[in-house]
Amino acid sequence: MTVPRTKHGNFLEDFRPGQLFRHRRGKTITEGLFAVFTDFCFTTNALAKNARYARAYGFRGLVAPPGLVMNVVFSQSVEDISENGRANLEYIDVRFGAPVCVGDTLEAESTVLGVKASSRERDRGVVHVQTTGRNQDGEVVLAYQRKVQVWKGNLDAPVAEGEAPARDVPVTLGLPAYDPGRSYRDLAHLTSPDTYFEDFRAGDVLEHSRGRVITDGHIMLTGMLDNTSQVHCNQWMIEQDPDRFLGGQLVVYGGIPFSLCLGLSSPDVFDNALADLRYATGRHSAPVFAGDTLFATSEIRALRDFPGRPDLGVLETVLRGHKFVRQSERAERVEVFYLEREIAVKRRSHYA
Amino acid sequence: MTVPRTKHGNFLEDFRPGQLFRHRRGKTITEGLFAVFTDFCFTTNALAKNARYARAYGFRGLVAPPGLVMNVVFSQSVEDISENGRANLEYIDVRFGAPVCVGDTLEAESTVLGVKASSRERDRGVVHVQTTGRNQDGEVVLAYQRKVQVWKGNLDAPVAEGEAPARDVPVTLGLPAYDPGRSYRDLAHLTSPDTYFEDFRAGDVLEHSRGRVITDGHIMLTGMLDNTSQVHCNQWMIEQDPDRFLGGQLVVYGGIPFSLCLGLSSPDVFDNALADLRYATGRHSAPVFAGDTLFATSEIRALRDFPGRPDLGVLETVLRGHKFVRQSERAERVEVFYLEREIAVKRRSHYA
Amino acid sequence: MTVPRTKHGNFLEDFRPGQLFRHRRGKTITEGLFAVFTDFCFTTNALAKNARYARAYGFRGLVAPPGLVMNVVFSQSVEDISENGRANLEYIDVRFGAPVCVGDTLEAESTVLGVKASSRERDRGVVHVQTTGRNQDGEVVLAYQRKVQVWKGNLDAPVAEGEAPARDVPVTLGLPAYDPGRSYRDLAHLTSPDTYFEDFRAGDVLEHSRGRVITDGHIMLTGMLDNTSQVHCNQWMIEQDPDRFLGGQLVVYGGIPFSLCLGLSSPDVFDNALADLRYATGRHSAPVFAGDTLFATSEIRALRDFPGRPDLGVLETVLRGHKFVRQSERAERVEVFYLEREIAVKRRSHYA
Repeated sequence: MTVPRTKHGNFLEDFRPGQLFRHRRGKTITEGLFAVFTDFCFTTNALAKNARYARAYGFRGLVAPPGLVMNVVFSQSVEDISENGRANLEYIDVRFGAPVCVGDTLEAESTVLGVKASSRERDRGVVHVQTTGRNQDGEVVLAYQRKVQVWKGNLDAPVAEGEAPARDVPVTLGLPAYDPGRSYRDLAHLTSPDTYFEDFRAGDVLEHSRGRVITDGHIMLTGMLDNTSQVHCNQWMIEQDPDRFLGGQLVVYGGIPFSLCLGLSSPDVFDNALADLRYATGRHSAPVFAGDTLFATSEIRALRDFPGRPDLGVLETVLRGHKFVRQSERAERVEVFYLEREIAVKRRSHYA
Repeated sequence: MTVPRTKHGNFLEDFRPGQLFRHRRGKTITEGLFAVFTDFCFTTNALAKNARYARAYGFRGLVAPPGLVMNVVFSQSVEDISENGRANLEYIDVRFGAPVCVGDTLEAESTVLGVKASSRERDRGVVHVQTTGRNQDGEVVLAYQRKVQVWKGNLDAPVAEGEAPARDVPVTLGLPAYDPGRSYRDLAHLTSPDTYFEDFRAGDVLEHSRGRVITDGHIMLTGMLDNTSQVHCNQWMIEQDPDRFLGGQLVVYGGIPFSLCLGLSSPDVFDNALADLRYATGRHSAPVFAGDTLFATSEIRALRDFPGRPDLGVLETVLRGHKFVRQSERAERVEVFYLEREIAVKRRSHYA
Repeated sequence: MTVPRTKHGNFLEDFRPGQLFRHRRGKTITEGLFAVFTDFCFTTNALAKNARYARAYGFRGLVAPPGLVMNVVFSQSVEDISENGRANLEYIDVRFGAPVCVGDTLEAESTVLGVKASSRERDRGVVHVQTTGRNQDGEVVLAYQRKVQVWKGNLDAPVAEGEAPARDVPVTLGLPAYDPGRSYRDLAHLTSPDTYFEDFRAGDVLEHSRGRVITDGHIMLTGMLDNTSQVHCNQWMIEQDPDRFLGGQLVVYGGIPFSLCLGLSSPDVFDNALADLRYATGRHSAPVFAGDTLFATSEIRALRDFPGRPDLGVLETVLRGHKFVRQSERAERVEVFYLEREIAVKRRSHYA
C-alpha cells in the first residue's frame, strides 16, 4: 500500500488565473535570521545595525533592510509558486509599506494573474503572480508581482492559460515622522557624511568599491529563509540530469544576489536612507553560482521631492550587479542583476 | 615543568556502571541557535516559524522542533560521554517532556548503565548511558538512553565492565490544553490541508520529495551546538591517521542528519503535529560526509488515539534517511538513519 | 557624467597623527551574532552559554566572551583604519572594561597615534591607532592600540609621518561584586572542577587538546562582524594580482583565529574565569587560510592576587595558536597567533 513520492509545489498545469494562495507557515524575524542574513550582505545602514540609533529615529528596534523583507515574503511563496520553477524572470512594481523590525511576524499570499505555456518548449511556461506580505497587525509590508518560469509536471496535461486582473493593494511606506526635537544631529557621525540627498547628481554612475565571493554557504542562507526550491540545495538531483538545470550545477537562490547587491551599494546610496520605496522592475540577468564574486553599480537616474516629507528626497536609481567570467585570455563582465530602485534618502539640511 | 596535553572527555576505561555525570555549561536556546539550526533542517512546522501562531496555540513563543531539543541535550553530554567516541550506535527510548521555547535554558546529566569492552578489538568498547535534559524550572524536556562506541585511551588499562539499572525518569509530554475558544480554524491556512491525523493510513510509505546536500557548513552547525567531538572538525587529526576514522575524513555529527531527516519529513507528517512523543529506537545506519545529499521516507506503521486528548492522534512511523552512493555504473541507495518515531498529530475535526 | 569608483577606507597618505575617527554604524549584539560567533569558537565558559548561570552571577544576561567584544569593536574600525590594510601587525595594551551582554550596542572611535612610511617598500607603511569601544551607556568596554600595515593609494602622495600622544582612557574591569548570599556552589557542577585559580602553577604549558579546521565559512563570519576588508572576501580581486596578497589567496580575518584560539584554550584556562583583564601585546605570527586546522597552547607565566577581590586571582598567560604545514616529508608546526593574556579566575575557596 505504498504511496507515490509526495509532491510539493505546483506545476504549470496546476495554476489557474485568479487563483489565491494563502501561503503556509509565515515567519517571525528572529535575531538569528536578522543577524545572519543582514550581515551577510554587507548592509551598512545603521538602522539595521544599531538599536540605539534605530530607536532614536522612532523605530521600535533594529529595522530589516529591504532585501530581508523581500526575501522573507518571497520565500514564503516558493512552495506554492516556484518550488518547481526553472527561473525567476521578473519582479514588477515592488512596493514597501510598514517598516519591519526584529520580532515581527510576516505572512504572505499570492494571486495568480497569468498562466502561459511556452510556445517553443512544451515542458515549461510562465506564471505571473501578485504577492502581498503583511505583519502581525495586518499591515502590508510589501506587495509585488513576479513572473516565473515553471516546469510542467505532466507534459500532456492541459494548461489553463489566461489572465486575471491584479488586485488593488494599497501600500503606504511607513516611516516615523520627522521630529525636530529628536537628536538626529548627535547621531550623524554614525552614518557617512557624503551620502545625503544633496550629494547625488542625476547621471552619475557609482561603481561600488566592494566585492564579495559567494560560497556554498548560500545553501544554508537559502534554508534559513525557508526557501525549499530544490535547484538551490539538491546536489544529487542536479547531477542526475545536469542539462535540465541552469549551468548544470546548484544555482544560487536569486534573493541572495538581490540582497548582496543592495548591500554592496549600501555605503554609497543607502547609508543615509530610511527605506527603499519601490522597485518598478527587476530581474536576474544571469545565474550566480558558488565561487562567483559579485560587484555592483548604481546609476543615479533622477532626484525628486518626497511628497509631505521635506526632510527626505527620492533617489531614482538603477542597481546592477555583475560578476566576471573568464573567457580564454580575458575576463568578461557579466550582468547578473538589474533593479530599478527608488530610495527615500535623508536631506543633510534636516539631519546633519 | 611542562604539563602533558590536556585531556577532555573520557575513554572506555574511565567509565563505571552507575556513575553520574552532571554535564557542564548548559545551554540557553538563543534566537541565533534557534534560527540557524531550525531553518537549516527544512522544518516546516509553523510552531517553529511563526510566533503569532505558536502563541495562539498556547505556547510561550517559538517552539523548538524535536531535533533541536535532542541536539542541545545530546551535545551537552558529548564532552563527558563521547568526545572520544568512534561512533554513536543507538538511541533508545527517547521521550519528550515539557515543550522547549526560545529563551529556555537546558541542562543535562547522564548515568552510566553499562560498560563493555569489545571482544574483537581491544582498542574500543561500548558505553551505555541514560541522559536526561531539564529546563530552567527543573522540568524534564527529554530523556533517552544511548549506546556509543568509545576508544580506549590506554590499551592496557582495565575496563570496569558491568551494568547498572536505569533510573526511573518520569517524562510527561507537555502540551497546552485544547481550548475550543481559541482561533485554531483562523490559522488553519498556515499549515497544509492534507496532513491531519485523519489523512494517514497504516502501511503507507511516504517518499518525501525534498533532498538537501550537506556542505562543510556542518562543522559550524556542530560547533553551534557546543559539540566538541573532534571527528567532526579536526581535519588535521584525521589526516594523520585516516584509517582509524570512519571513512577516513571528517564525519558529519549524527545530530545533523537526525535533524535534517526530521525536517525533510516535516511537510508530510509533521506539518500538523504538535510534538514528537517518543522514539523507541534509532540509529545511524551509515556515516554521512560533506557532499552527500540526504533524502527521507516515512513509513506509517500504525495510528492510535492519544489518551485524554480527543483532538490528537498518535502516528507511529519509521523515519528513514538515505543517500545515494555511486558504484561504478550505477548509484546505490544507502540508508543512513533509522528512527522509530511517534508523533502527536492534530485531528482535522478539531482544528480545521 | 560618470563618477569614478567609490572609495572606502583610507590609504596611508590619508592618515594624520592626532586624527580622530568616530566610526560609523555601531553594532547591537543580537542573539544571532552572539550565537554564531560565540559558538563557532568553542568557548566553554558558562557565562556565554547559560543565561540562568550568568544571571545567578549578577550579570544582566549571556555575557559576550572577550573575543566577541574585541571583534565587534575592532570591526567597526576596519572601514576607517584598515579596509586598505595589508596586514595587522600588533595589538597593544588591550584592556577590558564593562561587561558586554547580549542586547548591548557598542560604538567605537580611534585616534591616530603614528604614521610611518616603509623605508623599504614605497607602496605601504604603518599606521598606529588607539581604539576605544563604548556601550549604549557610554561606558568603556574595551580600549586598545594596534599597528597595521596599510597600502598607499597613490605612490607619489606625501605621507604625514609623525606621532601623537595616546589619550588617557580609563578602563575599569566591570564585574558583579562577590556576594556570599548567591548560590555559586549550587552551580559549580556547570564548570570544570579543576580550573580554579588554585589549580594553576607558573611555568606550566597547557597543550589544549582540541583543534578545529577553518572552512570558507570564515567569509560569512567576517561579514557578520561588518568587517568589510576585501582581502577576506573578494576572491576576484585576489585572483587578479595574487602576488600582492598574503599567500595569494583569501586570508582569514585575524579576529577569527584570535577568537578560536581563545575558545580552544577555554576549557583549560577560562572555564572558571569571569573575564579577560588585559592583553599586553598580541600579534598574528602567520596568516591563516581556509583548510588550516588550528590548535592552541597556554603558558602559565605567573599568578597574582586581584586587588580588592579576594575571590579572584589573576592568571598571567601566553596564548599561542598554531597550525601544521606540510613540508615534503614532514609537517612543521607554525605559530599563527601570540597573545600575552591576563585572566580573572575564580578561586575554589569562594565558588566550589
